[in-house]
Amino acid sequence: MTVNRQILLASRPTGWPTEANFKLVESPLPRPGENQVLVRSHFLSLDPYMRARMDAVKSYAKSVEVGEVMVGGAVGEVIESKSPKLAKGDFVVGPLGWQEFAAADAAAVMKVDTKLAPPSVYLGTLGMPGVTAWVGLIDICQPKTGETVVVSAASGAVGSVVGQLAKSHGCRAVGIAGGAMNCEYVVKELGFDACIDYKAGNLHHDLKDATPNGVDVYFENVGGETLDAVLTRMNPFARIAVCGLISQYNASDPYGVKNLRSVLVNRVKMQGFIVSDRMELWPRALNDLGTLFAQGKLKYRETVAEGLASAPAAFLGMLRGENFGKQVVRLV
Amino acid sequence: MTVNRQILLASRPTGWPTEANFKLVESPLPRPGENQVLVRSHFLSLDPYMRARMDAVKSYAKSVEVGEVMVGGAVGEVIESKSPKLAKGDFVVGPLGWQEFAAADAAAVMKVDTKLAPPSVYLGTLGMPGVTAWVGLIDICQPKTGETVVVSAASGAVGSVVGQLAKSHGCRAVGIAGGAMNCEYVVKELGFDACIDYKAGNLHHDLKDATPNGVDVYFENVGGETLDAVLTRMNPFARIAVCGLISQYNASDPYGVKNLRSVLVNRVKMQGFIVSDRMELWPRALNDLGTLFAQGKLKYRETVAEGLASAPAAFLGMLRGENFGKQVVRLV
Repeated sequence: MTVNRQILLASRPTGWPTEANFKLVESPLPRPGENQVLVRSHFLSLDPYMRARMDAVKSYAKSVEVGEVMVGGAVGEVIESKSPKLAKGDFVVGPLGWQEFAAADAAAVMKVDTKLAPPSVYLGTLGMPGVTAWVGLIDICQPKTGETVVVSAASGAVGSVVGQLAKSHGCRAVGIAGGAMNCEYVVKELGFDACIDYKAGNLHHDLKDATPNGVDVYFENVGGETLDAVLTRMNPFARIAVCGLISQYNASDPYGVKNLRSVLVNRVKMQGFIVSDRMELWPRALNDLGTLFAQGKLKYRETVAEGLASAPAAFLGMLRGENFGKQVVRLV
Repeated sequence: MTVNRQILLASRPTGWPTEANFKLVESPLPRPGENQVLVRSHFLSLDPYMRARMDAVKSYAKSVEVGEVMVGGAVGEVIESKSPKLAKGDFVVGPLGWQEFAAADAAAVMKVDTKLAPPSVYLGTLGMPGVTAWVGLIDICQPKTGETVVVSAASGAVGSVVGQLAKSHGCRAVGIAGGAMNCEYVVKELGFDACIDYKAGNLHHDLKDATPNGVDVYFENVGGETLDAVLTRMNPFARIAVCGLISQYNASDPYGVKNLRSVLVNRVKMQGFIVSDRMELWPRALNDLGTLFAQGKLKYRETVAEGLASAPAAFLGMLRGENFGKQVVRLV
């Protein structure tokens, strides 16, 4: 192995990205420096936030420059270590990018326990998406027993954990997802109390039916019309964690939200958040999530694309909602 | 004095209310019961929240029923007391309604010190609007020295206190108001650092100029386009207190807010609030406000309408932004 395959950002998208915005290149295998490790990635994570990084506009994190390796989390095996903290054969997770090999600071990756869960789970339920669900639901929204928790993109990597965490806190969990199959999965396999298929065209009506006691907590992954609909169901002192607005990322003309009066009338707290701002909460979150996972109370599904070259198409499919559960790319 | 004049809600408005939605009637002077006082109101307060009470739709407080006396705060003199807590000649403030006399529970009114400030000030700077400003700015937004605080409806009863409180906390205070005269008052008399005239038609551009370091705190009284504009100037971890959305109260088709992505990107906290939910904060707020007032650091202006019959027209004018400072009606 002397060659590292990488996917670069080839150009910035206008509206929906296409495969032409990415470029696969070969480069020499990186060499780890002092206190670094060389990691062979086994699974690459594909996540909605990456879409924002493709733009030059101000966002919460630095844009990927054209010609740079696309950013992304990956889990893999240490194949060479120049750090006393990690040994050859250890599995680690970290921001290794869209590439097969990466030299990374030992301090920038986290060792994972592949006996508790298979490696790819550390990109989803026991990784950034799982911690995101925990921070938004538990820390920001503080759900109480008996409350109704609604989450959009409920079958996704974050949403699926939000609903299961809500159930473990004694809440009514209501999902919003696209398509009958996703909704069936959310209710029958993940154990939500109800799931609304927004593609069925009766969002307002179905949401009302599914939330007879109103909505106390809304975990927002989608934005736009979905947010407008949920705003009409808010209870007094409801909380909204704004985790993502995936419906708007590719919109050249953003949707205008009309029902913000509900924020005033119901004294709603709406809070945007980014999980990387809350690093101090990761240990607590991962401890909670690991405990539930070991008890079989955190079910998950993955959509696995095969090989680095498939990453751009899989990423675009995820933005269109074609994945089922967490989208990863198998590299080994 | 054997007659009490009252203004009733005659019908519910559609969109903008008109004088035909109100009706002046005469009724017998009320008699105070046990633990009640009979109050002759000297000043009636007119406030934007009253518009919401005219509608039948669910809001944070009960609607006024058609045929009932319009709700409203007033300050007046106790002319008969059946309570050991208050004596004839005391001045009190409370929810006495749009009428000249009211029998009220002694526990529902608050005695005020007419040596510290004239009676009408207890309807504004040292009353509900002042406490509203304090709760939204100090408790919800927690401004820090050097931060930029923006407030809409800056020349109004709430906004004028928000900006002066912000200055007393070492912040840059930027107002948004309608018309050059209001803006001049906000800067020259109230001491804000800048004020943007939204009627001048350059809201986005002028806001950018007035907030060179972005916006850390936004106190929202207006909503709609103004909110959309301020959202483009948010700094990371900015806070928005949603106190009112006066631009939307009479809109049959509400404005669609397009820039909510800023809430996510900048991890903004947006919090709707109603001052009556925070009764436990009133003593602290009034103590702070009273101290600043005594030091001459809380300037105010009033627009005074004469006589109960003028209340509907004065109320409609206030909804259109024609008042200057706090709108009251003099009854005695």
